[in-house]
Amino acid sequence: MMTFREIFFELHTYEQGEFYLALSSEERQQLYRYLSPKELADLFDGIEEEQEDVEQLLKEMDSSYAADMLSYMFTDNAVDTLNQLDKKDVAMYLSIMEPESAKEIKNLLHYEDDTAGSIMTTEYVAIAADQTVKSAMAYLKEAAADAEIIYYIFVVDEAGYLVGVISLRDLIVNDDQALIRDVMSERVISVKVGDDQEDVANTMRDYDFLAVPVTDYKNRMLGIVTVDDIIDVIDEEAASDYSGLAGVDVEEVAENPLHAAKKRLPWLITLLFLGMSTATLIGHYEALVSEASILAVFISLITGTAGNAGTQSLAVAVRRLAMQEDDRSFIRLIFSELVTGIITGLITGLTIMVIVGVWKHNFTLGFVIGMAMLCAITVANLAGSLIPMLMDKLGFDPAVASGPFITTLSDLTSVLIYFSIASLFMSYFIG
Amino acid sequence: MMTFREIFFELHTYEQGEFYLALSSEERQQLYRYLSPKELADLFDGIEEEQEDVEQLLKEMDSSYAADMLSYMFTDNAVDTLNQLDKKDVAMYLSIMEPESAKEIKNLLHYEDDTAGSIMTTEYVAIAADQTVKSAMAYLKEAAADAEIIYYIFVVDEAGYLVGVISLRDLIVNDDQALIRDVMSERVISVKVGDDQEDVANTMRDYDFLAVPVTDYKNRMLGIVTVDDIIDVIDEEAASDYSGLAGVDVEEVAENPLHAAKKRLPWLITLLFLGMSTATLIGHYEALVSEASILAVFISLITGTAGNAGTQSLAVAVRRLAMQEDDRSFIRLIFSELVTGIITGLITGLTIMVIVGVWKHNFTLGFVIGMAMLCAITVANLAGSLIPMLMDKLGFDPAVASGPFITTLSDLTSVLIYFSIASLFMSYFIG
Repeated sequence: MMTFREIFFELHTYEQGEFYLALSSEERQQLYRYLSPKELADLFDGIEEEQEDVEQLLKEMDSSYAADMLSYMFTDNAVDTLNQLDKKDVAMYLSIMEPESAKEIKNLLHYEDDTAGSIMTTEYVAIAADQTVKSAMAYLKEAAADAEIIYYIFVVDEAGYLVGVISLRDLIVNDDQALIRDVMSERVISVKVGDDQEDVANTMRDYDFLAVPVTDYKNRMLGIVTVDDIIDVIDEEAASDYSGLAGVDVEEVAENPLHAAKKRLPWLITLLFLGMSTATLIGHYEALVSEASILAVFISLITGTAGNAGTQSLAVAVRRLAMQEDDRSFIRLIFSELVTGIITGLITGLTIMVIVGVWKHNFTLGFVIGMAMLCAITVANLAGSLIPMLMDKLGFDPAVASGPFITTLSDLTSVLIYFSIASLFMSYFIG
Repeated sequence: MMTFREIFFELHTYEQGEFYLALSSEERQQLYRYLSPKELADLFDGIEEEQEDVEQLLKEMDSSYAADMLSYMFTDNAVDTLNQLDKKDVAMYLSIMEPESAKEIKNLLHYEDDTAGSIMTTEYVAIAADQTVKSAMAYLKEAAADAEIIYYIFVVDEAGYLVGVISLRDLIVNDDQALIRDVMSERVISVKVGDDQEDVANTMRDYDFLAVPVTDYKNRMLGIVTVDDIIDVIDEEAASDYSGLAGVDVEEVAENPLHAAKKRLPWLITLLFLGMSTATLIGHYEALVSEASILAVFISLITGTAGNAGTQSLAVAVRRLAMQEDDRSFIRLIFSELVTGIITGLITGLTIMVIVGVWKHNFTLGFVIGMAMLCAITVANLAGSLIPMLMDKLGFDPAVASGPFITTLSDLTSVLIYFSIASLFMSYFIG
């Protein structure tokens, strides 16, 4: 069996994880016999907890083996794993685990989802300011094995306050006898434990950090967020924006159509009812349609085009909101969308006016369609930028104002505009 | 002025950049007098070249000052900056620059966009296998100042082949007298220079790397890609997927509505012509609508709902394609979307059948609407998953099959389905 272990440990922990996940449940039982909890923990540190059935994996193991493994994982990853389990299982594993590890995990478990606290880890390297570079390096050699990242070393005073930071790069190039206090940077960029994970991601992206310290509201050091976790956050947020725009959870793991249908139907049915208002509205104009059936021909063209324009406007607005621009710039954005709507509406309206005029030899009809197009696009652009902003102000995620919602709403306004304009010319159509 | 420099260099280079960009052109002229090209280069390394008018900024500077600054920047960033300029300006700066730097930049400039080569940098630390840990550390101290990242050290033989890698963490914990050859990892995960940047991002994300070596097709070391560049790639790809879904470039910098309209109109007008087909199609049924104007009432409800379902399906398909799944899983996806379409279509169709039946006291009409809804949703789901797959097979970016395109196309199929079914019951409607 030595040979298997030799080959297995030639692999990177990520590859070990891929191998492990590809095994059958019976084969994994074999593996548990050959790997120590610590070795399995290294592998588990590389698994995307949210995309795998970790609950099932842990249940396959002997409970104390699983608890041991969890205690050897980096605390942030252990917490992510435990967050996939039932509360009673979490309590069970924590009770079997050695108290020290259980305590560290419990300290992190209670942080709210999507905050810095929920993604930080406590395995960082902290030193005192009044030691030399040499002694710090000696300490680092000891601490390296247990730390998630050793390339930033944090300087903390006796009371736990974060007072400085030094990169390993600076540590290496400085003189052995220099005092940390003299070579550290006292201006530390840190994030608060309750900060939104998206803000943490923005900070790390702007500053090109590999890790950022997390402090409480009194600037006491609590942990660090590392860049690999931030990449997961960026992926998550991108998927959530994308899902929002489409009105569907694109991360849905299940290939199971029944499950997929169940997740998509709430939106479809909700929007069906909104669509019913549009139908009711058209119903009010049924007499007009009956007299001038040509009007029916252009309903979907007008609603469709306005919906497309509204979707464009929505996407730009949601994106801008994600970039945290201030109120003034947002009023500018809405004004800009209004003008963009008028310009695109004018050009699209003129185009359709000419086409309809020539096609149907009827420029009055062309004018009605073109005019309706102009107004409908302008309103759709306005709605596409205003609605996500209002949702943001009201504390909702603006990405929830999905494309389907905007197009369905824009159907309603477009139909209203179209038939209102057509009614003005009613005498003309009905003769 | 010493005071200004003191305050200025207290700032992180990212903050220096923000400060610099906020200055007026005249104020920046002052700054150029107080900062050396090297100091400005550190600041420029932190600027997002694609989001700023770097052409303008460089033109403000004395040409030789600008060329000096470019030569002090990390090569990948200098290349990104030069890629924003006209070819003749690039040639000009390269000719003023000292030949060594110009050569390094030219080596990177010719790599195709969106490949590993286009985002890599050449400032990495390379050592030989037959030296001791101690001598490697001594070399590292020298090299640290010029390297973009020193936390992975690459082992390269005389011919330039990549033969190993060792992390600074391992270097530190190993014995001073150990030979690099004995402590390095010989199994190096690397990417090829022509690899797509998205694949490079996937590798770095999976392995949680801070940097990955880039080699040519003979495994000769060419450079490294660092995690900060990968974060930019992930952002870029996410923005491009999001833009695709909305049929608009959400990265459009300009707040200028005229500019925005110009970028959005091509899609809108193209889709307007596709929408014209739908109008023409309805035109064929004008006689039917004229007799049974109630049919017009439900056009937008059916096209809208099917469009929403198609958008959901599209988003799921594009996302799966981005994850590079194999052909078999894709056929499964299309089958799954078909079944999902039938299930959601059945439930939505039944709902609307009951509503219309009760509302209009007319269950035959309800049946027609419900049946049309079922078929239209199924077809939209199928189109939403099939079309991006076909585009991918034909070598186009599947994300270009935007939501607006799918909804507009789905308008056409939905109308066709709706009126075909209604025609079958024509005798009933016309009586």
